[in-house]
Amino acid sequence: MITRMSELFVRTLREDPADAEVPSHRWLVRAGYIRRAAPGIYTWLPLGIRVLRNVERIVREEMDAIGAQEVSFPALLPREPYEATGRWTEYGPNLFRLKDRKGGDYLLGPTHEEMFTLAVKDLYSSYKDLPLSLYQIQTKYRDEARPRAGLLRGREFVMKDSYSFDIDDAGLQKSYDLHRSAYVKIFNRLGLEYVIVAAMSGAMGGSASEEFLAVAENGEDTFVRSPGGYAANVEAVRTHAPEPLPIEGAPAAHVEDTPDTPTIETLVAVANQRVPRDDRPWQAADTLKNVVLMVTGVDGTRTPLVIGIPGDREVDLKRLAAQLEPAEAEPFTDADFERYPALVKGYIGPQVLGSESESGIRYLVDPRVTAGTRWVTGANESGRHVFDLVAGRDFTPDGTIEAAEVRAGDPAPDGSGPLQLARGIEMGHIFQLGRKYAEALGLKVLDSNGKLVTVTMGSYGVGVSRAVAAVAEATSDDKGLAWPRELAPFQVHVVAAGKDETILLAAADLARRLDDAGISVLLDDRKASPGVKFADAEIMGMPTVVVVGKSLAEGTIEVRDRTTGQRDNVAVDEVFERLLATVRGTDAAA
Amino acid sequence: MITRMSELFVRTLREDPADAEVPSHRWLVRAGYIRRAAPGIYTWLPLGIRVLRNVERIVREEMDAIGAQEVSFPALLPREPYEATGRWTEYGPNLFRLKDRKGGDYLLGPTHEEMFTLAVKDLYSSYKDLPLSLYQIQTKYRDEARPRAGLLRGREFVMKDSYSFDIDDAGLQKSYDLHRSAYVKIFNRLGLEYVIVAAMSGAMGGSASEEFLAVAENGEDTFVRSPGGYAANVEAVRTHAPEPLPIEGAPAAHVEDTPDTPTIETLVAVANQRVPRDDRPWQAADTLKNVVLMVTGVDGTRTPLVIGIPGDREVDLKRLAAQLEPAEAEPFTDADFERYPALVKGYIGPQVLGSESESGIRYLVDPRVTAGTRWVTGANESGRHVFDLVAGRDFTPDGTIEAAEVRAGDPAPDGSGPLQLARGIEMGHIFQLGRKYAEALGLKVLDSNGKLVTVTMGSYGVGVSRAVAAVAEATSDDKGLAWPRELAPFQVHVVAAGKDETILLAAADLARRLDDAGISVLLDDRKASPGVKFADAEIMGMPTVVVVGKSLAEGTIEVRDRTTGQRDNVAVDEVFERLLATVRGTDAAA
Repeated sequence: MITRMSELFVRTLREDPADAEVPSHRWLVRAGYIRRAAPGIYTWLPLGIRVLRNVERIVREEMDAIGAQEVSFPALLPREPYEATGRWTEYGPNLFRLKDRKGGDYLLGPTHEEMFTLAVKDLYSSYKDLPLSLYQIQTKYRDEARPRAGLLRGREFVMKDSYSFDIDDAGLQKSYDLHRSAYVKIFNRLGLEYVIVAAMSGAMGGSASEEFLAVAENGEDTFVRSPGGYAANVEAVRTHAPEPLPIEGAPAAHVEDTPDTPTIETLVAVANQRVPRDDRPWQAADTLKNVVLMVTGVDGTRTPLVIGIPGDREVDLKRLAAQLEPAEAEPFTDADFERYPALVKGYIGPQVLGSESESGIRYLVDPRVTAGTRWVTGANESGRHVFDLVAGRDFTPDGTIEAAEVRAGDPAPDGSGPLQLARGIEMGHIFQLGRKYAEALGLKVLDSNGKLVTVTMGSYGVGVSRAVAAVAEATSDDKGLAWPRELAPFQVHVVAAGKDETILLAAADLARRLDDAGISVLLDDRKASPGVKFADAEIMGMPTVVVVGKSLAEGTIEVRDRTTGQRDNVAVDEVFERLLATVRGTDAAA
Repeated sequence: MITRMSELFVRTLREDPADAEVPSHRWLVRAGYIRRAAPGIYTWLPLGIRVLRNVERIVREEMDAIGAQEVSFPALLPREPYEATGRWTEYGPNLFRLKDRKGGDYLLGPTHEEMFTLAVKDLYSSYKDLPLSLYQIQTKYRDEARPRAGLLRGREFVMKDSYSFDIDDAGLQKSYDLHRSAYVKIFNRLGLEYVIVAAMSGAMGGSASEEFLAVAENGEDTFVRSPGGYAANVEAVRTHAPEPLPIEGAPAAHVEDTPDTPTIETLVAVANQRVPRDDRPWQAADTLKNVVLMVTGVDGTRTPLVIGIPGDREVDLKRLAAQLEPAEAEPFTDADFERYPALVKGYIGPQVLGSESESGIRYLVDPRVTAGTRWVTGANESGRHVFDLVAGRDFTPDGTIEAAEVRAGDPAPDGSGPLQLARGIEMGHIFQLGRKYAEALGLKVLDSNGKLVTVTMGSYGVGVSRAVAAVAEATSDDKGLAWPRELAPFQVHVVAAGKDETILLAAADLARRLDDAGISVLLDDRKASPGVKFADAEIMGMPTVVVVGKSLAEGTIEVRDRTTGQRDNVAVDEVFERLLATVRGTDAAA
């Protein structure tokens, strides 16, 4: 069936939507693919839903190919299973919660580990039933604090989520590898430039996990890469910890007056002036900055936490949040300082910190603060700092934490060279969940010895609606969208450029022949000027645009490649074959 | 790809689920197609989702064929548009409402008139843009008071809803007729026995509306049919009103003592004893029963309503509810009677009723209570009734109401003969909405004279997930499900009945050949007894079951038709062609 622009439910917009921050959002709205219904909640118009279905098809085919079976769970879910795993609470304000007419608690599913676990528990009972992989392509909900960038971070969105069930760790590794290979195929077919990076597992729990990030300037995720092949989401970067140094022989710690030095910058200046080093000037990296935070647990308890990091670095709030979640950290307020007199604002030092100390305040340090390292840090008195304070001798932190910013040039933790930083959009996430959910919900099967064992699980997601935006982000240019062939709503956009009956008939005839050949066609048959039609074709972004216009009189039709911009005048009697070859990928000229 | 029973995520159950009231629910659960996640909320397992997708495909094809364009609106919707049309309130407790993290009001969409209206308002502005039909196949939510019968009345369900937009009534009629024709094709393809009946438009508003009901003993809807072709949902039946009678010459009303006659039965007995008629005994149909109800409006106001119906009939609560909605009626309580002393329980008469009366209590009567009809009814004193009370002379109701039960044998309102009653499942509903939503939300376009006119709309629904149950309801038997070909999860179920390697290999080979020919195959390759496999095949209900078993040694394979029960032994070298012909509908033997 030929789709006619005169009938298609679409209007292109000349202006950018006011809330559009990124190209994909701007163009998807301007080209009439999506419309905002509420913050982070979008309507799919006819062009948009065709792209979404194409992504779904690719994902479905690749999931089927690894033997995963499609199911569909409800989006409206009862509280109980999520209560059993603790996620009813842990999700905090990100979860849409509601009550039914009888007062029963429900939620809108953000992800379905619990439900899949219970379904397998319901149906299966033996190791012979495993391995098993199930998936769904389904609408999910997350009450984001800051929905943004259109489909990139929405509150209602389409995801493919799948779950693997295995009897042992080796099985889980196999299921994980199978999913990884399927994801490689999916993202290759989507035509995305992507990286696979080590990831945090976050609120999901579990251990090994990797993310598939589409490389994108406007991505929300920062990742690192090394020349030797290390790649990780910045939240998951493990800091290269230097070897411990000998404590013996280190000078004794000494407190010095350092008036008016509440910041690292002022401290370094005063230290160089009043306590100069022989070998070189003091640097920010010689100081230990102690940042104090108030942490709110999911149960509402508020406890202080001090983080010690080298003075030349800032705390990276996203890295910190990933370490603490589901708890959340906020800056310490003046009122908080009053309640904890041990903490002298601007002059906090590790001597009064740690669970074993008098204050009992938890103290975690950057992994660079290894035993034997010497630091200039607060003396817990206003205007005074301590020098040559040695870790492992003069203070003992409660542990380490990955909260310091990662910088380009930092060494990769595996020794594979200096790190580069880049940004990406999280498109897929694969986890080895392990037994957390199976344990919480009692999913056990009989093993080959007739003994009940807990099943081990994997959890795997693809952002399906997000992929539409990610591809648009990667392929759009300053004129509009430009779809790769496998995602395009229509393969060919035939523009009747002129009001002559001959032109209209020739355009319609070509469209009909293409349609008969099974090629999806959009025919611009409107009574609009060629200029308007060309601009719309550029905004809407079908991969091949055919202009049936004035040159028809000279026996040619123009074929445009939306992505490369190439324009060819093709003889009228050759154009159909040429288009067939282009669409089917057998066009030597393309 | 061949699906193997040894890997398929399914378990058949030997016992009926405790909450299963109807065959479709029982068998869909027992055959492993669906599982209950919460009351009225179901999970689709692999077999179930294949049937659901088949229904979706049929609906999509027929909607596309009438030029309707697919879109997809969110399920999570902001309050404002529903507030503008009054439905935020009118839906009452049937609407799932929730708040987001910022306290904003949201709902889970039960139907999307508002959103479609706003989308068209957003994109279109001229009569030249019309007509337009848009549809979506989408998950919807309704917080039913009594979810029941599995997928037949759920709280989360899949619907196709579409909306037409026209410049005038003639256009609306065309769009309506187009949808009607598409629905006929859809329900024919689903293989359902159905009737098209006149319907109430309910909370949707609007005028002309028809329902497509699947004829089913367990259906929730009662409908009527006459020999002359009248058909209506019982809620929409218009009572045949007799001609008014002359008031002149009627005897004067007279009050009689009728002690201890609070019911129609006791009243008729006492009347025949104390006030006998000359011509025949008093009958229940001679009495006017006044039923008093408390009606709660959507704004929470409670007002009494008295309904007068012939004493031989009961009030039909569903018919009444359809008339009153969105308001709701409850029985009058003793406390209510105390507040309205004009109403003497058991002896209520119309003399004290009506908006113009002293009590001001609204009084509506059955359409049979035409002017000039004479009644025995309450005298508004305990133990007394009034005789020969004439409508239009002695009392004047505020109007009529269709609240009395409809009985088999009642005359059709169009004179087409006596009504028969039957039950059905509402599968589709088509409405001429008119301008209600367009007016409330300001959807106007310029007409050909450059004048702004309000668009007129139609609204059309198909219960997609419900269709899965309705077809199961119609086709299942005492052994399990029995799918029509177009809906079956798999066309052919190959059972390897025996442990011989030869049998297993022959079964697998046949499955492979069918799969290569593009036919969907389920292969039962489990290490289970033939009996277990046969029973599962019968419960699961693929249309063709092929048994590769002992007879293989004699050179035959058994082909079973699940629906007819026919079993044929087919020569091994003919079975593949035979199955091709059966599946493709070219089998002379079938």
